[in-house]
Formats: sequence, C-alpha cells, structure tokens
Amino acid sequence: MADLEHKNGNLGVFEPGYLKVQTIKVKKSDSPPPPTQLYIVAPVSEGTYPLLLFCHGYCVQNSWYSQLLHHISSHGYIVVAPKFYKCMLIALNNEVKTAAKVTDWLCTGLQSVLPQKVQPDLSKLALLGHGRGGKIAFALALGHVPTSLKFKALLGIDPVACPNPPTWPEPEILTYVPRSFDLSIPVGVIGTGLGNQPKCVMPPFAPNGINHAGFFNESKPPCSYFLAKNYGGCDMLDESKAALASLVCKSGKGSKALMRKGVGGIVVAFLKAYLGGQDDDLMAIVDAPTIAPITLDPVIFVKE
Amino acid sequence: MADLEHKNGNLGVFEPGYLKVQTIKVKKSDSPPPPTQLYIVAPVSEGTYPLLLFCHGYCVQNSWYSQLLHHISSHGYIVVAPKFYKCMLIALNNEVKTAAKVTDWLCTGLQSVLPQKVQPDLSKLALLGHGRGGKIAFALALGHVPTSLKFKALLGIDPVACPNPPTWPEPEILTYVPRSFDLSIPVGVIGTGLGNQPKCVMPPFAPNGINHAGFFNESKPPCSYFLAKNYGGCDMLDESKAALASLVCKSGKGSKALMRKGVGGIVVAFLKAYLGGQDDDLMAIVDAPTIAPITLDPVIFVKE
Repeated sequence: MADLEHKNGNLGVFEPGYLKVQTIKVKKSDSPPPPTQLYIVAPVSEGTYPLLLFCHGYCVQNSWYSQLLHHISSHGYIVVAPKFYKCMLIALNNEVKTAAKVTDWLCTGLQSVLPQKVQPDLSKLALLGHGRGGKIAFALALGHVPTSLKFKALLGIDPVACPNPPTWPEPEILTYVPRSFDLSIPVGVIGTGLGNQPKCVMPPFAPNGINHAGFFNESKPPCSYFLAKNYGGCDMLDESKAALASLVCKSGKGSKALMRKGVGGIVVAFLKAYLGGQDDDLMAIVDAPTIAPITLDPVIFVKE
Repeated sequence: MADLEHKNGNLGVFEPGYLKVQTIKVKKSDSPPPPTQLYIVAPVSEGTYPLLLFCHGYCVQNSWYSQLLHHISSHGYIVVAPKFYKCMLIALNNEVKTAAKVTDWLCTGLQSVLPQKVQPDLSKLALLGHGRGGKIAFALALGHVPTSLKFKALLGIDPVACPNPPTWPEPEILTYVPRSFDLSIPVGVIGTGLGNQPKCVMPPFAPNGINHAGFFNESKPPCSYFLAKNYGGCDMLDESKAALASLVCKSGKGSKALMRKGVGGIVVAFLKAYLGGQDDDLMAIVDAPTIAPITLDPVIFVKE
C-alpha cells in the first residue's frame, strides 16, 4: 500500500483517489426538499463514508469547484456543497443559517438522495469553506448558529472576513487576538500568496488583515497552515471558471490543475488525519512541503 | 532567594528590583555627541549589566516612560532610550536609521556617559519598542539598517505598523504571512486589549490588522505573547503622561501603576530568560498568568 500511495515522488493524496465518484444535484423542488440547492459528490461503490460540508465563495457557484470536490471525494468522502447566492451575488439568506440548516438536513435528508448502498458516516463530519465561504465555515464551527451535528475538523481555503454588507447581519469572526477562536477541533488554513494583491482596478480577493494569516493566528492548536505561495484566491476553481475568475482576481502563472491537486491533497491529508485517525500524510507534508505539486511556503503545524 | 523573589504571591519581577538606579540624560551637544538625545537609566552599584535599547512611541517622548524604565533597570539592566521626534511629532530622521546609529554608538560612546564602575555588557543586548517604536524595533532587529552590535532578544509593547507618512520612506514590516519575520532571536509581544478601540473621535492607537496580533503571528518560535486585556496602548507611560494620553487614546479603568508593574515584570522575566539564561520567571508567567498584577489573557508561548 505504501508504494501505491506514492506517484512520481508525490503523496497519493495529491493524485485522484481510486474510487469512482458521482455527482448528485439536489434541487429545492425535490422531495423531500433540502434547505437550498445542493451539489453533492459521492463515491459510487458501496460503503460508509465520512462527510465534508463545503461552503463556496462569494460571486461563484457551488458547482464551480467540481474538479476539486471530485478529487476529494475520490479518496472516500461524501462532499455536500450548498448554494448560498442567487445569481452568484445576492444572499439567499444569512449564509451561516443556511449552512446550519443544511448541516441538520444531513441527518434527515442526505441518505434519501444517495444511492442506498452509499451511506454517510454522520459521526465523521468536517467543514470546509473557500473565501467568504471560509468565514461562513468558521462562523458555523464556532456555533454562531447551532447545529444538531457537530464538526470534527475545520478547514479554510483562503478564508476572508470581508466586511458584511449592511443588509447581512452576521457575526464578526476575527477578534485580532491570537488563538481566540473558541474551538476544540483541529483547524487547517490554506492561504494563497497572491490573494492579497489587487487585479487591475479590482480590490484584492483576500486583503491583508482579514485573510488566511489572521484565521490561522486566531486558531488554537492543533492547527496547520499552508501557503500556496504562487497562486491566487480563485486558482482552485474548475479550469474554465478559474480562467474566468482570473479576469477580476489575481491569478498565479502556474498550472491550475496542479493547484487543484495541491489544495485537494492537503484537504484529503487533513481529513485522513482528523476524520480517519491516520496522520501520516499530513505529517509528511508538514515535514517535507516539497512533496506537494505546488510551492507551499510556509507550512506550519502547531501541535501543543 | 526563592522567598525574596515572591511578594504578595506575585513574582519578584513585577515589583521594583533591589538595585538603586540613576537617570542619565545625554544631550546632542555633549562631548562626544550621541546620534540623538538619550534618556538612560542604569544601576548605581558597581557591576557589568546587560543592555536594553528602548524605542519610544509616536507623539510621546523617551522620558515619558521613566517609571517603567526604572522598574526594568532596577533588576539589573542599563536602558538606553533614544529620542526620535522633534516636538513629539516630526521625525528627526528615518527612525530606524537613528536607532541603528544609537546601537552602534553603544560600543563607542556609552561607557563614556556612564560612571566608570557601571559597565555595559555589550554581548547582552536586547531591543524593546512601544507603539510605533515597536515597529522601529522590529525593523531594526530585521536588519533593515545594519548595526555592528547584534540583538539577542526582541520585545514589542503594543507594536503598531501604522502606515508611513509619505515623507518617511521606511520598510514595511508586516507581510501577512505567519512566522515570516526572518529572525532567529526570541521575540515577545505584549498587546493591550483596548488598543484597537477608538477614543471619541480619535482613531485607535493600534488598529486591528496592524497591531500586536500580527506581530506575534509573524514571529518565529521561540515567541511569547501577553495580552494586557483591560488596558490601553498608553497605559504603561508615567502616571501623569498616561493621564494626558488617555484624553486621546483609549485607556483602561484599572491602576496604571499595576499596568507598569505588569509590563515591567514581563519585560524583566523575558530579559532574564534570554539575556540571563534563567527562564523560571517567564515560564511561571506562561504557566500561571494570574500571578501577574494585571489580567493577562491570553498568554501564549510557542517553544518549538
């Protein structure tokens, strides 16, 4: 198995997993209706799989991450990505409330939309968010809206605590005090090195002072940090969507496929460690970040 | 000695030390002339003492910290505080350059202004700065201006990376990447819990995103963090100056004398650990922050 886990000198987590996966789109009009439209990726093979709730970013759609979410799911996870906005811009509702409703729905509705032989392990649930969705994920994990299911691990990809539009009452997340998040679960933060840079006249995707660095600083150990040094905040989207996003969002010059593998691999290594109890891959990345297909600099792991 | 080190349940570092100290004011007109006016506090007794270079904050004078600096010096340190501004506002020069010149002057000029029996141990030099002076201290330690003497430890009291006036070319310090400071010396950061709050129409002393939390986040281990939760950014100034500053700077309701003892004690414990090789007091504060005379919450020590 050790040999299978390594391809071209990289960890297996950075390559697609061995499981075939399927996409399941659940509409609000389906019966029983979910709290919002859902984009689900799940393994095809019979089995019981840990769960990942994914919060997409602002101005993008939940389906725009299909390649990243397929990568993650192919390693044995059921990924559920709720839709938060109408026309990509207008919040359907307070996003944290929507995410909380979807979390509760996982208990009651998820099995009904999955093939019967594919079962969610509700005791193993992690939370992941990108950009503004990262903030939503942190808010949800912090309990700003209560959920019946509890999260076992939390990850943010270029999380950004952008100021809320006045019509979106929503908790502030960053307190500007180190290790202040009242969380007892492992936290991982993946930042991008170019996310704090403007693109022409457009403001940065994740400005200094409200981005990944702050989210990591306020996380208690155990926490991990990975900076995708040469990429921008939207470079992990699907190939065509990343190209579209690069018109308004600073983008890296490197291969977006490698970025998706890099981010996907970190997420899988993190989930294996904290949902599966196998931290070999996570520690391998921490110990030798160059095994990743993209430059991760720095990688920080705080254990104590 | 263990008994002497504890008074009223507190560590001795939080009380004045046993050494009588003297103030020495060095004017630019003195011979040989120092790079700028200096406020020096040093023990009176014969001995060789470690050194602390202190960078004062914006809009205040180097002599406004006399009580804090006396506290530190009475534990066996020579404290040298250069003056950076004319009329408290106008920079004499690039402050980092001034601080570097003073550092170099310590080798050549300090002994000449001290009583002959009081000798500086130039091999044990630490750097401390307050507010904007904290930024200057970090810039100096980071080598933005080279110095002949090297620093063995670095401390910031409510350091703030305020934007530079256009006429003050000066390096940016914060990079918004965790542990990015290229420093191999121990770093300590003392923040204030009220420093990020505005005072009436005045902006905050140390706004979120450019304050103590960021300086700590970008420090490599070993690094320590202490948040004086209920105090403001100028509450460690001399009693009358703190009262004056509280008109424009958010101030705590508690005793300023206790704040000076708290900050002074942390600085002394830090210097004892990293200039003197005795980390008992620092570890005692880390292990039980309630031994301090002020609320320190959180206290964080990152060893690895």
